[in-house]
Amino acid sequence: MSLTLGANSLIVQDWRSPPAAPGMALEEVDTPALLLDADAMDHNIALMQEHMSRFGVALRPHGKAHKSPDIAHRQIQAGAIGICCQKASEAEEFADAGIENILISNEVVGAIKTARVARLAQRAHIGLCVDNAVQIHQIGAAARSHGVTIDILVELDIGHGRCGVGSPDEALALARLVAHYAPNLHFSGLQAYNVAAQHIGDPVARSRTVAASMERLRDVIAALAEAGFECRTVTGGGTGTCFLDAASGIYTEVQPGSYALMDIDYAAVAPTSDAPSWRHALFGYCTVSSLHNTHAVLDGGLKAFAVDSGPPRVQHPGWNVKTLSDEHTVIVPQADAAALSVGDKVRLIPGHCDPTVNLHDWLIVMRGNVVEDVWPVAARGALF
Amino acid sequence: MSLTLGANSLIVQDWRSPPAAPGMALEEVDTPALLLDADAMDHNIALMQEHMSRFGVALRPHGKAHKSPDIAHRQIQAGAIGICCQKASEAEEFADAGIENILISNEVVGAIKTARVARLAQRAHIGLCVDNAVQIHQIGAAARSHGVTIDILVELDIGHGRCGVGSPDEALALARLVAHYAPNLHFSGLQAYNVAAQHIGDPVARSRTVAASMERLRDVIAALAEAGFECRTVTGGGTGTCFLDAASGIYTEVQPGSYALMDIDYAAVAPTSDAPSWRHALFGYCTVSSLHNTHAVLDGGLKAFAVDSGPPRVQHPGWNVKTLSDEHTVIVPQADAAALSVGDKVRLIPGHCDPTVNLHDWLIVMRGNVVEDVWPVAARGALF
Repeated sequence: MSLTLGANSLIVQDWRSPPAAPGMALEEVDTPALLLDADAMDHNIALMQEHMSRFGVALRPHGKAHKSPDIAHRQIQAGAIGICCQKASEAEEFADAGIENILISNEVVGAIKTARVARLAQRAHIGLCVDNAVQIHQIGAAARSHGVTIDILVELDIGHGRCGVGSPDEALALARLVAHYAPNLHFSGLQAYNVAAQHIGDPVARSRTVAASMERLRDVIAALAEAGFECRTVTGGGTGTCFLDAASGIYTEVQPGSYALMDIDYAAVAPTSDAPSWRHALFGYCTVSSLHNTHAVLDGGLKAFAVDSGPPRVQHPGWNVKTLSDEHTVIVPQADAAALSVGDKVRLIPGHCDPTVNLHDWLIVMRGNVVEDVWPVAARGALF
Repeated sequence: MSLTLGANSLIVQDWRSPPAAPGMALEEVDTPALLLDADAMDHNIALMQEHMSRFGVALRPHGKAHKSPDIAHRQIQAGAIGICCQKASEAEEFADAGIENILISNEVVGAIKTARVARLAQRAHIGLCVDNAVQIHQIGAAARSHGVTIDILVELDIGHGRCGVGSPDEALALARLVAHYAPNLHFSGLQAYNVAAQHIGDPVARSRTVAASMERLRDVIAALAEAGFECRTVTGGGTGTCFLDAASGIYTEVQPGSYALMDIDYAAVAPTSDAPSWRHALFGYCTVSSLHNTHAVLDGGLKAFAVDSGPPRVQHPGWNVKTLSDEHTVIVPQADAAALSVGDKVRLIPGHCDPTVNLHDWLIVMRGNVVEDVWPVAARGALF
């Protein structure tokens, strides 16, 4: 056991301060923290851009995954045309950081939120999805009263059963209603994001599901074209389907988010033949706070790791996660497990990156084993 | 459809501002939000205090459940002796709000954190749990260098398999090590919090599990007494077992947290004969953002509701939760479901209150259908 006596210089003055500072060694990072492997992230960002550019498809990475303007700026520097957000509040945070082209890839409802979207359009190029007349009337009125123009994408349900209209007739009716609010609303095309297909592990089954949804999408595009509505933008494509969507010749842009960080869930989605393997760039970092013959306890639990897609995976040889409770993760050793002591720190791969990032205020950017930077999770908690 | 034109006065200037203000009607609260039913919470707080006072047992409610100094102050005004926290950072937040008696009911490891605990003891009465010599050396050195006294509780594993030592000999060895750091560390007793027993739904099975663990606890207390270590404090008792623990004659204090707010998980834990039924006081509040023949979509998902103990339950007649994704909850109607329109707002009971509260920055305090106050979730994100 090594004691650091007279360690007052180590004291973080306020727990809201970052748990690390540039130049620190990995072992000095306070826990539970979120580590970002900068090499792995740079690799993922460059590779996705290279492939999507090769397809001739615009890349608009999703900011809901990382909630970090620092990452968004790197994605845009690499060639992305802008970003996606799911919430007006997220979009405000990214716009505050100088991101000028944002698609809110979601339905926004209510006078407060539509007014905020309209105000946002005074300082950034804003797109918004709709699947309902109520929303169009609300955003149309807000855009008019703010004197702005907002790009509107009609969302299609191509088999996932969440948001979106299902038929060409419904899409056409909404496009006509959007046109009624010209020039403040501008019909720019369709969003067809196949939620369910993203997480189909088998690439053949995933390809088949995506191919089936393409037929539906083609029908809607044709019906709109016949009525004089050109779909200049057709957007979709998460990390699980963006290679299929980009290869379709139908999509003009894709909006993957998780590829930059990766998690256990998406690592189980086998790549299609031409798609690269992404590197894990996001890790939880915890301290062994209690140690017993049968198990060890880590100092982060359900408030540090989202478990909706399964528990995190500990990266210490021979140890497996048994359970998580609010502030603890219990890990158990196999016969050949590497030693652990109280105070040791271990890395864990999150089960699902998006809601895990949303639990943390900071991303500790690691270059090898040295802290390169600390980035705020600026849009953490941006629910509105 | 009603449009609120010229609604600029409704705009929340910064998304970090609260989504409601005192005096507002429920329907005006922006979503997704967390509502606190003040009548139900007052009822739960008064009832728990009344019962524990009748048992002659001290009540030290757990702050990890609500992370709200406002709620903690009400619990103390009702008769609680102080609060519990799980983290040094949580304790700092509650101490900043004037809470003077805090038990950190968890093992704290590392020079940074133990120095912070010692510094905290300069301005509040602090207790801390240990189950390992390393921790005792670290907190002992920190308490000495800060010139403070910290109450130390040796944690026992009474069958739950998380933190805590298992045998009288181990407990005694740790008590002796604590004594080595007198007067800066003061051995004050034991923590025996039965994690697993809290959530056993059947009261008979739960009583049996608790009774079995009491034998182990008695043995340790006797062994310590024989060696001259008096357990002035024996603490445990979450919402699921506090009536059993309080009735045992062994425990001197209990530390329930969820009872004040309640959730689906604890509502399924049937009360023992003498225990009251708690009222649900915590509710998610969401807007219908998308509506279809087969389903509706709410504007809060995995980033608004923790699902480790199951999904939230929607409180609109005839509707059930089907799935949650990051920003959406899909709900489906039964044959006799009440009507819903885009823009309607609905309440949901969370599956698990603690990690759900930790996703939000504000508690909207409702008295009936009017906003009475807005309280910050001050220790939200206090992981350290």
